Amino acid sequence: MDELPAFDPGCPMLGFLQIGDKWAAMIVVSLDGGPRRFTELKRALPAVSAKVLSETLRTMQRDGLVRRTSYPENPPHVQYQLTDLGRTLLPLIDAFGDWAAGHLDTLLRARQHYDSRAEPQVGRSS
Amino acid sequence: MDELPAFDPGCPMLGFLQIGDKWAAMIVVSLDGGPRRFTELKRALPAVSAKVLSETLRTMQRDGLVRRTSYPENPPHVQYQLTDLGRTLLPLIDAFGDWAAGHLDTLLRARQHYDSRAEPQVGRSS
Repeated sequence: MDELPAFDPGCPMLGFLQIGDKWAAMIVVSLDGGPRRFTELKRALPAVSAKVLSETLRTMQRDGLVRRTSYPENPPHVQYQLTDLGRTLLPLIDAFGDWAAGHLDTLLRARQHYDSRAEPQVGRSS
Repeated sequence: MDELPAFDPGCPMLGFLQIGDKWAAMIVVSLDGGPRRFTELKRALPAVSAKVLSETLRTMQRDGLVRRTSYPENPPHVQYQLTDLGRTLLPLIDAFGDWAAGHLDTLLRARQHYDSRAEPQVGRSS
């Protein structure tokens, strides 16, 4: 077989592939219906810390996927919304969600099979 | 606007969404042409450490996406290949790659714009 070509570590595409991370995908889905405040997103994603959520939002803002608008009210408030570019991710995320939902049984069976063969490990986290 | 429904942190789908990570996607693409040895994959992905590569392969094995076969030769050798399930990810990854390639200019411009507005930070890594 031919030698595999190496992925170029300097390729700018590499960084963008990180937007495929699980929180970014869930943020895009959460913003599908319209602008949201940080506290609303935090409530929708209870498994993510406020620190990671705000870092992920900042990365998505930097990549032009999310727009942050602050309103000079009292108390001040900030809203996040999808940009047109961010919105183009929705069909991809839907397709991936359909894939995961359609193969959930197979995935769960594979995990059970793998774990049943694995050697017991002391102190293994659940 | 209606309150956002919370993503259930206990949902087993959450774990699978992690296979969307950048290394997993590149491993799937690297195995598209047939079985590969660990050293071949390592060479194809110079930006990933051997430790992370083997952890990612183990996770993909556990999820039934990759099959690991060891041949009792001298010296022994191990090969990784896509399972039928792993192969079903290829069109999704292709679609995401097309998205990234098609929007690369927009993404790069968004980053430049964001960085030009950001405050200079001492000791910021490049």
